[in-house]
Amino acid sequence: MSEYARGLEGVIANESSLSNVIGNIGELSYVGYHIDELVKNCSYEEVIFLLHHNRLPNQSELTAFEKGLRSDRNLPQQVIDFLKSAPKEASPMDVLRTAVSMLGLYDDRAAIGEPDLDKNAAIALSLCAKSATIVAAFHRFRSGQELPEIREDLTEAQHFLYLINGEVPSDTAARILDVALILHADHGMNASTFSARVTIATLSDMYSAITAAIGTLKGPLHGGANEGVIHMLKEIGDLDKVDEWVEGKLSRKEKIMGIGHRVYKVLDPRAPHLRRLAIQLTEELGEPKWIKMSERIAEIMRERKKLEANVDFYSATVYYSLGIPTDLFTPIFAISRTSGWTAHVLEQLRDNRLYRPLTKYTGPKTLSPVPPIASR
Amino acid sequence: MSEYARGLEGVIANESSLSNVIGNIGELSYVGYHIDELVKNCSYEEVIFLLHHNRLPNQSELTAFEKGLRSDRNLPQQVIDFLKSAPKEASPMDVLRTAVSMLGLYDDRAAIGEPDLDKNAAIALSLCAKSATIVAAFHRFRSGQELPEIREDLTEAQHFLYLINGEVPSDTAARILDVALILHADHGMNASTFSARVTIATLSDMYSAITAAIGTLKGPLHGGANEGVIHMLKEIGDLDKVDEWVEGKLSRKEKIMGIGHRVYKVLDPRAPHLRRLAIQLTEELGEPKWIKMSERIAEIMRERKKLEANVDFYSATVYYSLGIPTDLFTPIFAISRTSGWTAHVLEQLRDNRLYRPLTKYTGPKTLSPVPPIASR
Repeated sequence: MSEYARGLEGVIANESSLSNVIGNIGELSYVGYHIDELVKNCSYEEVIFLLHHNRLPNQSELTAFEKGLRSDRNLPQQVIDFLKSAPKEASPMDVLRTAVSMLGLYDDRAAIGEPDLDKNAAIALSLCAKSATIVAAFHRFRSGQELPEIREDLTEAQHFLYLINGEVPSDTAARILDVALILHADHGMNASTFSARVTIATLSDMYSAITAAIGTLKGPLHGGANEGVIHMLKEIGDLDKVDEWVEGKLSRKEKIMGIGHRVYKVLDPRAPHLRRLAIQLTEELGEPKWIKMSERIAEIMRERKKLEANVDFYSATVYYSLGIPTDLFTPIFAISRTSGWTAHVLEQLRDNRLYRPLTKYTGPKTLSPVPPIASR
Repeated sequence: MSEYARGLEGVIANESSLSNVIGNIGELSYVGYHIDELVKNCSYEEVIFLLHHNRLPNQSELTAFEKGLRSDRNLPQQVIDFLKSAPKEASPMDVLRTAVSMLGLYDDRAAIGEPDLDKNAAIALSLCAKSATIVAAFHRFRSGQELPEIREDLTEAQHFLYLINGEVPSDTAARILDVALILHADHGMNASTFSARVTIATLSDMYSAITAAIGTLKGPLHGGANEGVIHMLKEIGDLDKVDEWVEGKLSRKEKIMGIGHRVYKVLDPRAPHLRRLAIQLTEELGEPKWIKMSERIAEIMRERKKLEANVDFYSATVYYSLGIPTDLFTPIFAISRTSGWTAHVLEQLRDNRLYRPLTKYTGPKTLSPVPPIASR
C-alpha cells in the first residue's frame, strides 16, 4: 500500500548519526554534542573532523587534519581561468556550482560505482578546503583584483576573510565567522543535504552530489533566504519605520524573511549565538542600526505571531557587519554546509540504497490512440 | 506519526500528469499515450512538445516548436572554450554536467524565486537543444576534430549524428536514434527526475535542477547501467562462451547488467522496441554477433531467473551498432531525458512544495560535554 506524502512531510527517508534536529524543543546536536558546547569549545575544523569521522579529534589528529585542509586550498589552473572569465554579474552560487562540477574533471579519485571510502573521504576534505577559495577568488576577480597568495598558516575562517579582503582579519572577526561556520555545518535532512544523498545513491560521484546540493541550496526557500533579510532591512531603512513596515506586511499576510522555521516550533537554537555575535560586532563597529532594526522586527513577530527569528535572520546581519557582500551570504552557507553534505555522502556510501519514490499519476487514465497530425 | 521508508520505497512524493509507469503489467505512457503508439506515429520533437505542453502539437505548432529547437543549438563561446580545454580523458557526463551548469551563467532568464513559467519553458526548450550540441562538441574536440557547422535543416536525431560523425546519417540510423530518444524521454519518479524536482522545489533555477539530474543519472545504479552491458559483451567475447559465463555469474550470485528492473515485474515495455531495432541494425551492418549474444543471455535469464532484459540491455547494442562510443551512451540518455526532466521542473513549479523528509537519528542519544582536546 503506497502513501501520499506531499513534499515527503513526515516521511523518514534514511538513517543518520550526524546531526540531530529536535524541532519541538529547539535542540541541535552534531554526533551527540550540543551546538552550544561545540560553539564554546571547538573550532570549525574540529567540527568538520567530527562530521567526517563521527568523533572529535585528539590534538595530533586535529593538527594533521588542519594540515590536510590547508594544503588543499589551491585550485587547478583551469578552474582559476574559468573564475576569471565568468561574467562579473553572474550569481556567485552559479559560479560555485559550475566550479565544483569542473573540479571533478581534474580528480581521478572520483570514480563512479563501487565506492572507495578512503578516496571519498579525501575528496570530502578537498571540497571543504577548495569551496572557500572558489567563492573568494570569483569575488576578487569580479572586483578587478588578483587573488592573494594562498597561505597555509591560517584557519579556514581566517583564510576566507584574508582572501576576500586581502588582509588577515582581526581575531574577533575570524572567531565570529568560525562560529557561523560551525552553526551552519549540518542540519538533518534539509533539502540540499537530501539532494546530495539522492544523487550519490545511484553510486555517482562526490562532485555530482555536492554540485546538486549547491544548486538546491541556492533557492530562496532554502539557503537563499539570508540575502532576503538584508534586502528587507535596506527596504525598511530606519528603526522608526520598522513597526509600520511590519504591520503592513502582516495586514497583507505577506511572509517576513528570517522569521519562523519549518522544523523548529520554538526558538532556532542557532539564532541566539548569531544574535549575540551580531550585537557584539555592530557595537564594536559603532553601527548598531541593523541589529536594532532586527531586534524590533523579532520582538513584533514574537508578540504578534508567536514566531521566533531563525538562523538566517541574524547571520545576515553578522555577515553584513563583517563587510561581506550580500550575494556571498548563501555561498558562505554553502562553504560551511559542504562539511555536512560531504559527511552525508560518506554516510550514504557506507550503507547505500537508491532513492526511488513513486508519483501519483494524475494525467489521462484511458490510453488514446495518437491522432494523425492533420486532424489535431 | 512518522514512517521509515528506506530509499522512499512505496512512498508517493508528488503528483504528475507526465508519464505513467505501470510496473505490474509492463506499461508505459506519456500524457495518456502508450509508448507503442508514440514510437509508431510520432517524432522525438512531438514527444518533447507533448511533455512540455501536456498535449500533442498540431502541424503549425510542431513546425514552430521545431524551428525554436533548431535555432537554439548554438552554445555561448565560453562554453565552447571550456569544452575545448576539458581533459580528453574526462567523463563526458562530468563535462555535460559542468557545461549545463555553465550555461546558467549566460542566461538571464534563469532567475530564482517566484517562477516565470514562460521563461522557464523557453529555458527548457533551450536545454533540450543544447545538451546534444555539448555532448557532440566535447566528443569532436577530444578526438582532435572541429565541430561541424551547426545546421537548422535537420531533426534532433539527425543533427546529433551529423555532429558526431561529420555527415548526415542515413534515414534508418536517424529513425533508430529518434525511437531511442522517444523511449528514454520520461519514466516516472526515477532517481534523476526526482533529484531535479528536489532541487527546483527550493525555487532555485532550471539550470541547477538539470545539473543535479545529470549528476544523478551518471551513477551505475541508474543511467550508467547501459555502458556496463557493452563491457559485459566485450568481456564474454563470443556467442559460444555466453552459457558458461552466465552460469558462472549465477553461481557466484553476481548481478548481470541490463537484466531485471526495480519497477517492471514483467517485460520492460521499452525493451522490445530497442530489441527490434538492434536486430534490424546489426543485420543491415552484417554484424549480428552482439545481438545474438544478447539474445542468448536474455534467454538464459528468462529460463533460469524469470527475469527479462530491460531498456539498457538493448539500447547498448543499438548505440554500439550506430558507431557511438561507449562512454556517450549515458550522455545520450541524458540528452533524451532532458525533455522529461525539464517537463517535471515545469510541473513542479506550477504547484510547488519543498521536499524535506525526516531522518532517523541513530547517533549518540545522550548529549555529552565536549572533552578538552588534551584529554581526548
